[in-house]
Amino acid sequence: MAHQNPTQLETALCMLINVFEKYAKQEGKKDTLTKKEAKTLLEKELPGMAGKNSDDGDKLLESLDSDGDNEIDFKEFSVFVICLLCCAHNNFFLNEIK
Amino acid sequence: MAHQNPTQLETALCMLINVFEKYAKQEGKKDTLTKKEAKTLLEKELPGMAGKNSDDGDKLLESLDSDGDNEIDFKEFSVFVICLLCCAHNNFFLNEIK
Repeated sequence: MAHQNPTQLETALCMLINVFEKYAKQEGKKDTLTKKEAKTLLEKELPGMAGKNSDDGDKLLESLDSDGDNEIDFKEFSVFVICLLCCAHNNFFLNEIK
Repeated sequence: MAHQNPTQLETALCMLINVFEKYAKQEGKKDTLTKKEAKTLLEKELPGMAGKNSDDGDKLLESLDSDGDNEIDFKEFSVFVICLLCCAHNNFFLNEIK
């Protein structure tokens, strides 16, 4: 990403990294999301998706924490992004058809 | 994505979908990338990464086309995005350390 004018794809990738960093640095290790950070990310970044149930952060962490270390690293976050991306893409197409 | 002010994460997801759509609709099926479209996407969206070798599009298509139908659908594109994302994140950290 050393160009003066980043492309749309490069900009989107940088934004995703920034989102992860923003919440990961709030407490504990700077490069992983704790339960609390995952919950905050969900609430702030996906307000339409986050339920009002207070254990959403815990559920998200459990489902994404594939190595079982009780934190979400960037690779695990990437899997989450893929899931969101495919859901968003499917909804986009459903809306196109309507 | 029905909010008036999309969050940074929602904006990034929309941008990724837009990038795919932009190139997928150019020829053939509207919801998949042909070899030519994949090559154009690579050249336009990742100018720093694309080599000058004219078969880059072919190589990209071969490596991502997991179902072997000679086209890249959105799920296959998502896998490409994850690879880019992890590479970009690693580079980001290397630059932080320097």
